[in-house]
This record gives sequence, C-alpha cells and structure tokens, in this order.
Amino acid sequence: MRHEEFLQQAIKLAVDNSSTGQGGPFGALIVKNNKVIAASSNQVTHLLDPTAHAEIMAIRLACQQLGDFQLQDCILYSSCEPCPMCLGAIYWARLAEVYFACNRHDAAAAQFDDSFIYDEIALLPAQRHIPMHHINLPNASQPFESWAAKTDKRLY
Amino acid sequence: MRHEEFLQQAIKLAVDNSSTGQGGPFGALIVKNNKVIAASSNQVTHLLDPTAHAEIMAIRLACQQLGDFQLQDCILYSSCEPCPMCLGAIYWARLAEVYFACNRHDAAAAQFDDSFIYDEIALLPAQRHIPMHHINLPNASQPFESWAAKTDKRLY
Repeated sequence: MRHEEFLQQAIKLAVDNSSTGQGGPFGALIVKNNKVIAASSNQVTHLLDPTAHAEIMAIRLACQQLGDFQLQDCILYSSCEPCPMCLGAIYWARLAEVYFACNRHDAAAAQFDDSFIYDEIALLPAQRHIPMHHINLPNASQPFESWAAKTDKRLY
Repeated sequence: MRHEEFLQQAIKLAVDNSSTGQGGPFGALIVKNNKVIAASSNQVTHLLDPTAHAEIMAIRLACQQLGDFQLQDCILYSSCEPCPMCLGAIYWARLAEVYFACNRHDAAAAQFDDSFIYDEIALLPAQRHIPMHHINLPNASQPFESWAAKTDKRLY
C-alpha cells in the first residue's frame, strides 16, 4: 500500500535525523502524482529556526519545486501528527490530504509540546500561558482597507 | 505608550506591503529590551512560500539576529491576531508576550482564512475539510525511541 510506503520513508527520515544528530525525531514528505517532490527532517536546532519543523520545510521545498505558493494536488506524509503550526501551514498551502504515523500524545510522551499547544489554542488569547493582548487602535483596519481597495492584488 | 507605538509600526508595515504590491496586508515586529530586533510584512506570494506570514518571517529574522532558536525575552507585535500557524510558532519560539491590533474576525471579514483554520483545529483529524489520517504502523515509535536513547541531543 502506497500510503504506508511513504510513511515509512518519513519515519526513516525522522530516525536518521535523530541518530545522526542534526535535529529532532521528525520527518515529512510531499507527494504529487505518487512521486515524492520534497522531503525534510526537523531542522530547528541546525538552522536556528523554531519554525523549521519537518512539515514546514517540506512544504517550502515543494512550493519552490512547483513554483507556486499552493500545493492543491499534493499529499503530506509525516512521521507524527502535525503540530498546530504545521497544521496551519497545511491549510495555507491547501494540501489535499495528510497521513501521519504517531499522534500528538506520542509526541507529548516524548517531551514535545504539541499537545500543550493544541490545548492553548482553544483558550481566549489573554488566558494563555503566553499572554496575548488585543489593543484597540482607531486605525487598526487601515491594512485591510488598503487591501480591499487594491485592484491588482494577488490572492493567496 | 510603547505598546501602541510598536503596533503602529506593525500597521504601517502592513499598509505599505499592501499598497506597494509585495504581499498581504500584515506586518509584525519582534522587540527585545524596547528595541525592534526584527520586522517583516507578509511575503507569501513574493517568496512563493505559504508559511511566509509576517510573524513567521519576523521570528525567523529575530532568531538569526540573536543566534538562537528561542526568543524568551522578546515581545511580538502584529497588525493582526496571529493565525494558528503563527500562534504555534510563537509557542515554539517561546516568546514572552504578544500584542495585536485587528483580530481573527477582522481577518475573516477581509477574506483571510484565520478564523476557519481556528475552527478546523478543534475538529478530530478525520473530520476536517483537509482529511487527516492516522495510520497505525508497528514501527511508528522508532523516531522517539531513537531520541530517548540519544545522549547528546539538543533539546528545543
């Protein structure tokens, strides 16, 4: 079965990344028409980039490959359930489908914050562990007014 | 008040980005010790990178500036409430605090998917508009076993 085969590739990337010391134990692939067009492991500590999760890196690489900022006909395979950051990226990239091996609770058991962040997202901004404050400013809507008035905008 | 001053800078970045045509109407800053150490507008269509939201770009830049993959003593100012992707990045970067001007509903009114993605995150993976499948594999936990056994790992 192809889905399992691609997930095994993602697991191998994750194991290799952990064992060779480049970063966290996560791997992801982007597949289009049954072909792998991008693959990455977690590169957070290596690149000094907290956003460099395997899924984010694979999405970026796939977009560069296709010369597009969307991945409509592509499938993401990940060694672990995507965290909220990667889940958001999956929606913005408009992927068709996602398959994963471990889930957020397996990640939590391995000391990763995925499950904690899922819980935080459901809270009101000011109640979160990282306090988030909405400040009312009279001109807050200027950016959206500018966008609405723009006649040559590139929707994304 | 400093918070409003920094938010005005983020709003200006957002307006300029929309009006000069480089991308979406969003701007963000990272501030440490009352100094702006990184700033960005949305670069999705410009860079062909669906993850290049203003907040993600500012976080990446700030990390490069500090030579670290975490931003513990830093504050994020954003022209709009961070979407779930950026919210996840804020937790992984371990920022101290967040201030924003518009909220997710203002973004939705301007045709951005932030509010939709917040709703999707609360659903079970298989029930989402982008279907997400957990496949049980006998060796799914190999990456986390490798990580647990690793003696020289760099925690993040």
